[in-house]
Amino acid sequence: MKLIDQSQVKTIAVLGTGLIGAGWTAWYLSRGFTVRASDADPKREAFLRNFVKEAWPLLKPLGMVANADPGRLTFHADPAEAARGSDFVQENVFERLDLKQNVLAAVDAVLPPDRVIASSTSSYPPSDLQAKCKHAERVVVGHPFNPPHLIPLVEVVGGRKTDPAAVDWSMAFYDGIGKKAILLKKEIVGHYVNRVQEAIFREMVHCVAEGIVSVEDADIGVAYGPGLRWAFMGPAFTYHMAGGPGGLAYSFDHFGPDIEKNWADLGNPKLTPELMKTFIEGTKAETGGKSYPELAAWRDQCLVAIQGALEQVAKKKG
Amino acid sequence: MKLIDQSQVKTIAVLGTGLIGAGWTAWYLSRGFTVRASDADPKREAFLRNFVKEAWPLLKPLGMVANADPGRLTFHADPAEAARGSDFVQENVFERLDLKQNVLAAVDAVLPPDRVIASSTSSYPPSDLQAKCKHAERVVVGHPFNPPHLIPLVEVVGGRKTDPAAVDWSMAFYDGIGKKAILLKKEIVGHYVNRVQEAIFREMVHCVAEGIVSVEDADIGVAYGPGLRWAFMGPAFTYHMAGGPGGLAYSFDHFGPDIEKNWADLGNPKLTPELMKTFIEGTKAETGGKSYPELAAWRDQCLVAIQGALEQVAKKKG
Repeated sequence: MKLIDQSQVKTIAVLGTGLIGAGWTAWYLSRGFTVRASDADPKREAFLRNFVKEAWPLLKPLGMVANADPGRLTFHADPAEAARGSDFVQENVFERLDLKQNVLAAVDAVLPPDRVIASSTSSYPPSDLQAKCKHAERVVVGHPFNPPHLIPLVEVVGGRKTDPAAVDWSMAFYDGIGKKAILLKKEIVGHYVNRVQEAIFREMVHCVAEGIVSVEDADIGVAYGPGLRWAFMGPAFTYHMAGGPGGLAYSFDHFGPDIEKNWADLGNPKLTPELMKTFIEGTKAETGGKSYPELAAWRDQCLVAIQGALEQVAKKKG
Repeated sequence: MKLIDQSQVKTIAVLGTGLIGAGWTAWYLSRGFTVRASDADPKREAFLRNFVKEAWPLLKPLGMVANADPGRLTFHADPAEAARGSDFVQENVFERLDLKQNVLAAVDAVLPPDRVIASSTSSYPPSDLQAKCKHAERVVVGHPFNPPHLIPLVEVVGGRKTDPAAVDWSMAFYDGIGKKAILLKKEIVGHYVNRVQEAIFREMVHCVAEGIVSVEDADIGVAYGPGLRWAFMGPAFTYHMAGGPGGLAYSFDHFGPDIEKNWADLGNPKLTPELMKTFIEGTKAETGGKSYPELAAWRDQCLVAIQGALEQVAKKKG
């Protein structure tokens, strides 16, 4: 299939402007694109413009391009109208399969077939999403992480009808605008990263349920321990370092049998009402009474500060 | 039981001076303590003194006290000799139960019973370690994370014979010298944090085994996504934020059933030789040909930089 040259992508349609769509909008504007946003709810326009305004100072240290203009944004009720004249589509409407299928089909009908359509879905495999599209070969999942304007990761995966060229195009596109794209070679429930998040949460819930650790200490244990390392190297890389000069091969020799043995001991808890209450109260205690906007502002500043600090280290290394 | 007043703790015995013992030594020196280190291998003294010298510039921004002196270090072949005259013991000898039991018993015999003995063990429950001690009530596990001088977390857990007062004393002691202690209310295989590390690694191995994702992308997916958040808030706190103003209660309402459903889909892979080879080659590719000392220096700088950046954000919030 023939796809638009990436240097020709000037206008992006962002469909659905909840937190995910608003984050994408802010990011694309900061990278110099024109954004045509759509939402069925007209009240969303004020939220969106305010979101962009508040995000702007945070986006500057993350590599905003010189000619970025937060005013290069239009708002439309109809997703097909937003898509018309766009060079790339990022869909973020409410997480319901029939709704997403219909929006994608409507957009597919008006958009030249050399333009890629990406969905931010966290729940649906692309094969399901593309079902009603005529040019299903250009439909991919491009799944970001909250908040999408401040976290680089995007998971890219194609469906049964997706042309591999559309997957390659999307990987190169996201990487080219400052995101970090990873490739999922097959569709799987929850994509990849939510699965590892759920895996760590499962063992955490298990240890709280068994009376080993409080919710607060369970969180502190991650954030003041391996979390500091996971901000710049993944779990396999961490085990590689744990092996010293012998690397991961040494780690497997020395810890591999223990890891396998411990896997057998990990838990399969149920999220009972009582356990959920324990977690809700525990996390509430962790917030120290701060409001959600206060906490979100703190989180955003931490994300920007960490990335800035890691960039300084990378620069020093040359 | 009566325990030494924490303001009276001036001298710490660090038994075993591999990477863990050396990290503890550097940390305790940076906090103004005198360290009496011991190792059966006399060649370790040169390694230890060099480790402290190289760690020193990194420890400065992490809150070194004004009168800290890297020269306040003596080296001894015999652990009991190192322990004699010490106010607290941190044991880090080779991870073998009989060896640890014997070292702890030898130290227990010479150390006044109001001094706490903590083991850095990652494998053994404190009930096993304290078996041969006369004053077993003061034996705890104080399990750090690699590298121990740069990562704040310490897991504290007592054994069957441990007096709860010794556990409380240890929690307060570590927190008081700039570490972050979490309390394990019961003994469990692998303590807590290694279990959640193993849980995330299990799902990662599963997804690689299923051909979903490459080792490199599996690591990138953590480090450029949730890893950035886990450096300052744990997994439960992250789900709390994902619920917006409704917090974790909202998240459980909306994602709880999906999380439970997805738990059922998580994998139970085996670490086959073929799979281990895939991981060893994948992590090697991630290192970009850099040597272990180069990588360790980069890791250490990243850990210091991240903690500095997070401290700046905390200061700004007031």
